[in-house]
Amino acid sequence: MRGKVNLDESFARIADPWSPRIVGELNGQHVKLARLRGEFVWHSHANEDELFLVLSGRLRMELRDGDIHVEPGEFLIVPRGVEHRPVAEDEVRVLLFEPVGTLNTGDADDARKVESPEWLS
Amino acid sequence: MRGKVNLDESFARIADPWSPRIVGELNGQHVKLARLRGEFVWHSHANEDELFLVLSGRLRMELRDGDIHVEPGEFLIVPRGVEHRPVAEDEVRVLLFEPVGTLNTGDADDARKVESPEWLS
Repeated sequence: MRGKVNLDESFARIADPWSPRIVGELNGQHVKLARLRGEFVWHSHANEDELFLVLSGRLRMELRDGDIHVEPGEFLIVPRGVEHRPVAEDEVRVLLFEPVGTLNTGDADDARKVESPEWLS
Repeated sequence: MRGKVNLDESFARIADPWSPRIVGELNGQHVKLARLRGEFVWHSHANEDELFLVLSGRLRMELRDGDIHVEPGEFLIVPRGVEHRPVAEDEVRVLLFEPVGTLNTGDADDARKVESPEWLS
């Protein structure tokens, strides 16, 4: 089995925003870490629910029926099919749980798409 | 969709140790919160990998080939089939991520078994 993962040490090795790195895998799901800065693209995931656990900063999750502000120590689950747009006015660090193969940009066409996120360890 | 979940507010509603509460569900997985105090029972899960993210305290995960100490801001994934025993000399608060239906005691017979964890919200 793999060893433990330290979140701060892992983030020290991530510089670029909107580029999730894989730090764990279990039951067909990936644990990812990402820095968010600025406005992402509106998108949804047809078959994947997505969890955002905020570790630092304040995430504004824009939804078609209103915004949800997610603070450090809080998480939000965006169900499959629900359009959302993450916005980080100041930098936000998040831990993501989602199925293996989930695209960061979902159904949207955006230059920040990461087809195959890298393992960090 | 459900709203966001605040971890501290959720823990304020959990008093008893070794009794995980469900705070989220996605992709057939549950997000659970639990307080750990003292020594649990040696067990394994035949078909479920299990993630322990430590939020406070220091978790000693005993494994048959050695201990791993998991500190706040660190997580450990125990793969299916791997015998483990969580020990918390002082109280530990953890976030768990595991498939729906995962028994806290796995294959062990222990009075602390929780057949159907409650939703907290």
